[in-house]
Amino acid sequence: MIKRLNYGMVGGDLNAFIGGVHRVAASFDGRTQLAAGCFNPNAEPNKECGEFLGLDSDRVYKDYVEMAAKESAREDGINFVTIAAPNNMHYLVAKTFLLHGINVLCEKPLSFEVSEGEELKKIANEKGLLFAVNYAYSGNNMVKEARELVEQGVIGDIINVNAEYLQEWLIDDIGAGDNTMNKLSVWRKDPKLSGSSNCVGDIGTHIEHTVSYITGLKVKRLAAKMDYFGQPLDLNANILVEFDNGSHGVFSSSQVCVGHMNGLVVRIFGTKGSIEWVQENPNILSVTLKGKPTQIYNRGMSYVSKRSAQMSRIPSGHPEGLYEAFANIYKVWVNANLKKLNGDEFSKYDDDFPSIDDGIAGVKFVHACLASNKNGGNWVDVD
Amino acid sequence: MIKRLNYGMVGGDLNAFIGGVHRVAASFDGRTQLAAGCFNPNAEPNKECGEFLGLDSDRVYKDYVEMAAKESAREDGINFVTIAAPNNMHYLVAKTFLLHGINVLCEKPLSFEVSEGEELKKIANEKGLLFAVNYAYSGNNMVKEARELVEQGVIGDIINVNAEYLQEWLIDDIGAGDNTMNKLSVWRKDPKLSGSSNCVGDIGTHIEHTVSYITGLKVKRLAAKMDYFGQPLDLNANILVEFDNGSHGVFSSSQVCVGHMNGLVVRIFGTKGSIEWVQENPNILSVTLKGKPTQIYNRGMSYVSKRSAQMSRIPSGHPEGLYEAFANIYKVWVNANLKKLNGDEFSKYDDDFPSIDDGIAGVKFVHACLASNKNGGNWVDVD
Amino acid sequence: MIKRLNYGMVGGDLNAFIGGVHRVAASFDGRTQLAAGCFNPNAEPNKECGEFLGLDSDRVYKDYVEMAAKESAREDGINFVTIAAPNNMHYLVAKTFLLHGINVLCEKPLSFEVSEGEELKKIANEKGLLFAVNYAYSGNNMVKEARELVEQGVIGDIINVNAEYLQEWLIDDIGAGDNTMNKLSVWRKDPKLSGSSNCVGDIGTHIEHTVSYITGLKVKRLAAKMDYFGQPLDLNANILVEFDNGSHGVFSSSQVCVGHMNGLVVRIFGTKGSIEWVQENPNILSVTLKGKPTQIYNRGMSYVSKRSAQMSRIPSGHPEGLYEAFANIYKVWVNANLKKLNGDEFSKYDDDFPSIDDGIAGVKFVHACLASNKNGGNWVDVD
Amino acid sequence: MIKRLNYGMVGGDLNAFIGGVHRVAASFDGRTQLAAGCFNPNAEPNKECGEFLGLDSDRVYKDYVEMAAKESAREDGINFVTIAAPNNMHYLVAKTFLLHGINVLCEKPLSFEVSEGEELKKIANEKGLLFAVNYAYSGNNMVKEARELVEQGVIGDIINVNAEYLQEWLIDDIGAGDNTMNKLSVWRKDPKLSGSSNCVGDIGTHIEHTVSYITGLKVKRLAAKMDYFGQPLDLNANILVEFDNGSHGVFSSSQVCVGHMNGLVVRIFGTKGSIEWVQENPNILSVTLKGKPTQIYNRGMSYVSKRSAQMSRIPSGHPEGLYEAFANIYKVWVNANLKKLNGDEFSKYDDDFPSIDDGIAGVKFVHACLASNKNGGNWVDVD
Repeated sequence: MIKRLNYGMVGGDLNAFIGGVHRVAASFDGRTQLAAGCFNPNAEPNKECGEFLGLDSDRVYKDYVEMAAKESAREDGINFVTIAAPNNMHYLVAKTFLLHGINVLCEKPLSFEVSEGEELKKIANEKGLLFAVNYAYSGNNMVKEARELVEQGVIGDIINVNAEYLQEWLIDDIGAGDNTMNKLSVWRKDPKLSGSSNCVGDIGTHIEHTVSYITGLKVKRLAAKMDYFGQPLDLNANILVEFDNGSHGVFSSSQVCVGHMNGLVVRIFGTKGSIEWVQENPNILSVTLKGKPTQIYNRGMSYVSKRSAQMSRIPSGHPEGLYEAFANIYKVWVNANLKKLNGDEFSKYDDDFPSIDDGIAGVKFVHACLASNKNGGNWVDVD
Repeated sequence: MIKRLNYGMVGGDLNAFIGGVHRVAASFDGRTQLAAGCFNPNAEPNKECGEFLGLDSDRVYKDYVEMAAKESAREDGINFVTIAAPNNMHYLVAKTFLLHGINVLCEKPLSFEVSEGEELKKIANEKGLLFAVNYAYSGNNMVKEARELVEQGVIGDIINVNAEYLQEWLIDDIGAGDNTMNKLSVWRKDPKLSGSSNCVGDIGTHIEHTVSYITGLKVKRLAAKMDYFGQPLDLNANILVEFDNGSHGVFSSSQVCVGHMNGLVVRIFGTKGSIEWVQENPNILSVTLKGKPTQIYNRGMSYVSKRSAQMSRIPSGHPEGLYEAFANIYKVWVNANLKKLNGDEFSKYDDDFPSIDDGIAGVKFVHACLASNKNGGNWVDVD
Repeated sequence: MIKRLNYGMVGGDLNAFIGGVHRVAASFDGRTQLAAGCFNPNAEPNKECGEFLGLDSDRVYKDYVEMAAKESAREDGINFVTIAAPNNMHYLVAKTFLLHGINVLCEKPLSFEVSEGEELKKIANEKGLLFAVNYAYSGNNMVKEARELVEQGVIGDIINVNAEYLQEWLIDDIGAGDNTMNKLSVWRKDPKLSGSSNCVGDIGTHIEHTVSYITGLKVKRLAAKMDYFGQPLDLNANILVEFDNGSHGVFSSSQVCVGHMNGLVVRIFGTKGSIEWVQENPNILSVTLKGKPTQIYNRGMSYVSKRSAQMSRIPSGHPEGLYEAFANIYKVWVNANLKKLNGDEFSKYDDDFPSIDDGIAGVKFVHACLASNKNGGNWVDVD
Repeated sequence: MIKRLNYGMVGGDLNAFIGGVHRVAASFDGRTQLAAGCFNPNAEPNKECGEFLGLDSDRVYKDYVEMAAKESAREDGINFVTIAAPNNMHYLVAKTFLLHGINVLCEKPLSFEVSEGEELKKIANEKGLLFAVNYAYSGNNMVKEARELVEQGVIGDIINVNAEYLQEWLIDDIGAGDNTMNKLSVWRKDPKLSGSSNCVGDIGTHIEHTVSYITGLKVKRLAAKMDYFGQPLDLNANILVEFDNGSHGVFSSSQVCVGHMNGLVVRIFGTKGSIEWVQENPNILSVTLKGKPTQIYNRGMSYVSKRSAQMSRIPSGHPEGLYEAFANIYKVWVNANLKKLNGDEFSKYDDDFPSIDDGIAGVKFVHACLASNKNGGNWVDVD
């Protein structure tokens, strides 16, 4: 029985914070080994990163095409690749590895165009490969608890959703024109690198996915007002949504809301109760049943479901954070890859990672927001 | 110099909770005396209420028309009337008292139709009478502080608004058809008594007013999705708004969101900072300046502005609540009435009560929501 | 059947904030009428106050001795007196009114000396008079809920108590010697006016009473460290306590803890659960049962007990505050006085106001703290 | 220049949660490599753990004495050892490795007896070895910020401390006698394994250390009441403390406070301001300056000090938790070890890990609590 996996990484050199998060997260449970990488198209930082990570120098590749080819040819080649390269590379890199028969865990967005995402799905299906899109917040322990509570019918039928993802870090871009002071934000506002949306594409999609993951609902139609404040891409968006069960809700997404660092907040209202989850205090889930006091669920307590309980690594009251959310994505992903390799049957928890369908839904969501906004903010269909 | 005012009340008998709140609130500062009333059109509860309140029996009137006529004829007649009768009576009662030369403090909504509100304004102006509409939440001490901070430019230009008013008390009406279990809600769902909207009309307008009071902005256009869940009037609404300065925001209004008792929350985002106020913990105001930690303002502290400081009755840390919000409305209202009587000049704080223009804006807002919703939730102008 | 009571007030003129709170609180339910007063020993402010409040001039008395004598001689004399005079007057005023057969509601502290409190109790008992000591925080709706939960055994046997009352308003007195900048605090630091303790006497006793009211436990022994920071009376105190059931706890009391306005917080831990109440957000009670999520109780909801439910005046989610806490003390007190007058039987809720025994316990508690502190902070018996 | 360290581990096999936390934490920054271990005295789990972790089989030792001897003899031997064995082993294991010239990072408690700790210190000093005691909470980013704020004088002189560490997990042991249902707690209540105190020894010392780390103050005298509830070791303790600057405070430590999972809360009050840190929401620090609103500091923002800023791995608003606290201990520890190896000069941040003096202070604190409690809870000196 195979118990451990080799994996590779594209992008994510020592200067890219997200690469390090992936590597630590993948290592939490001791079941993966980073074996190959192409961390940067420039030779120097690529080599430096490979050395720092202790990789064999012949598995630090100068480009991802070579990496996919050589790794797929090795007996001990990587089982999956993590794609942490810039957004505009996701589709190309993913396609290359899929075509070489290697499973893919890709950072979001899956792609810029819907058709690209669907093409990736088609290839993965044909090749029988696993594909995950790293909507990392859905890895949070109490997000999983929320999903389970909804699935068990604890809060009844969903009748309203109020969700938001507010940040403040681009506030200085308002009115700054090209002279943005925020270096980090430069690539995010370049459509070539970032895609056709900045705020909705970067964080609005996390609202869409987290809500969808918890509720199982899909956004069917929406009306979006996106604010650009003189920049080429959006910095702020307010979105009315209609779900496929006919209920409504509102998503607010912003990078210019002072006072909010990384405020993903999801509130789901049902006929029998409601749940609220706040990313900045993620070990807590507020659950209210109709006519009862609000209950403050804590991660890891005896009353939580198996879905979340099995994801806890440390006792209740000891905070888990972003790394653990990533690590939970990897935990399920590695479970699935190992079961596939070992020919084991999947349980309902084993495909509990964000899928390529989730990735495609995210791309569609962004395009629908842009279409609505262009259309004066009136309603458009997502599909 | 006149220091104390006689006033009368229409509606608000001993069984109507709002009448008692008005009476206690009006008495907080010892400058008003309830002198006349028509508390209920039925003789028995009307008399009982008048007796309990210690009124002279000849000033407990069998109908408001008689009351307006007789009080206006007395030398010691009431200076103003508080209208706490059912919604469908507001316009008629207000008009009657205005025509008899008596100032009016009217519960919201001002009227069902915009034209009615405008007629009342015309009469009040012609007669030189004062008119307040009791958007009571704007009386909260820290709402006044918020208004002052915005007025002083502390948070810069407004770029986004996120506000909500969530309640849960009508949750059992979903799917209950005519068999609503919630007796209290019956009249609220009867268009004849309640007007053409329930949820937006009752609480959505408080969002609109509180935001407008704090920011000075007016809603220019909106897109609303209202949910009826099988009832004749709306129980839930999500609304995108565009303000007259071009910025956008979202208002969520609901009576079916389990876990929320009376959740009016207003968040105002500007180019230099933001403020957040939560009605259920009203002595606090969160203020964040760009690049700085969030600051938790407490009512009555040395750092607050004169506008709010002068409204504090008890030291910081001793909670003030709904009664004090009402009492603050009365405080300003009585100030204005006394100044008018005594021929004193108004300061900027003396017309700081919700005006008839605010009342008309509220009626327009409700009608615009209904029009948008009827039109598939697409955008409509408010005016 | 008598439905309304006349009452009088000693102290509490227009400049004393506590007098106004008493008057508004007494009026909340419309069952009392202020009929007489001696608000200030100086003629001018006394007269001004009486006039402002609309009293008959012959019932505005120049001293409380005359007031007690004349009111007790009138057929329509006051039923009870509220004592809101400075601390050093409480015993003398209370004794005078008791001896004239008038019921007493006295601000805390009941007296400076234990023997004085016991003398008052003896007189009240002999005369068959009612006596309340205004530990106002115990009037809070959710404090009553807490008491009921403990009484019903919901949290089991008490095993630990953690309570505090932290304020910051005297921070500038540290190191200021006689040159205190805080005018308000001058009398509080004068042993002649304030008694032998400032911080423990003023607010520490509220901890002791609130805990005792909720749990039914009495402090049997204690060890106290009081900090004076160069002032004649204490500004800060940390106290270990042992209750009469053998369990322990800690009380922290301070007027120099920056960041705390009026932070009375009570946490009671039992073998089956725990409760937490925070005065600055008083409409909430946190209740945790062993092995279950913490539950956030809201005032006035269907799940609360009769003891608290009957004290709610406005719907859940509409904040009640300090005035309502006072008003609840009056509500129960007036119930008791009316029942006594009408010869009705008392229910368990009718003596649910802080009693003279509570007042005596408070005086003993202060003396025990002083004795322990003098003794190096070692343990002393309270009785 | 040496950039990476080999280390070993004693204790912490695959079933011991703390071992895994250490290994992940040590790996966060990619500068350590686990190279040797003796994870369990039993051969099977020891071997299994070594294999799972990919160690060379000849560096998985059957006992720690052999491990110390052989590793110290290797050219590529470990640079330091992490001791995660049961409490009763700490002293012996640490001594063994020190005597073989290997630096030690030891879980707390350092030892059972003060003399043992002092002996370890003497050896480490004589050998010129580094020694850390893993008071992990002091690794929290915002605890470091708190330390810096106090050091910079932002809150002035410390005048009061209110700190607590409340848990609930042993509540079922009350009254259970020997039949404790909580398996996990068995060894904690066995004096041979756990030392002479359970609650104070396990978590009370974290209060003592965190307060000391933040403030620089030492506990000079204390009065402790410890509750055993029929068990051989304490489950609950309330402690008055006097610091070496003459100020006082209170520490509450409990494993039977229902509603608290891992509630380490530290509040430090000074003449100019105060700070509050709550372990369960660790990315936040509340800072109040005299006369100003409370400020909510967020980890990683531009306004924080270098001491905390350099510890942030991910952007503000992305929660860091327990693993990161451990990882920060390792970060500083590895810095120090590398600087020592490379002969670099230490900055003020390089010995910013909990030292052997801190470990000794912890042992003294526990003994003082036991002595006071035995003495009726009266005051005893710590030294």
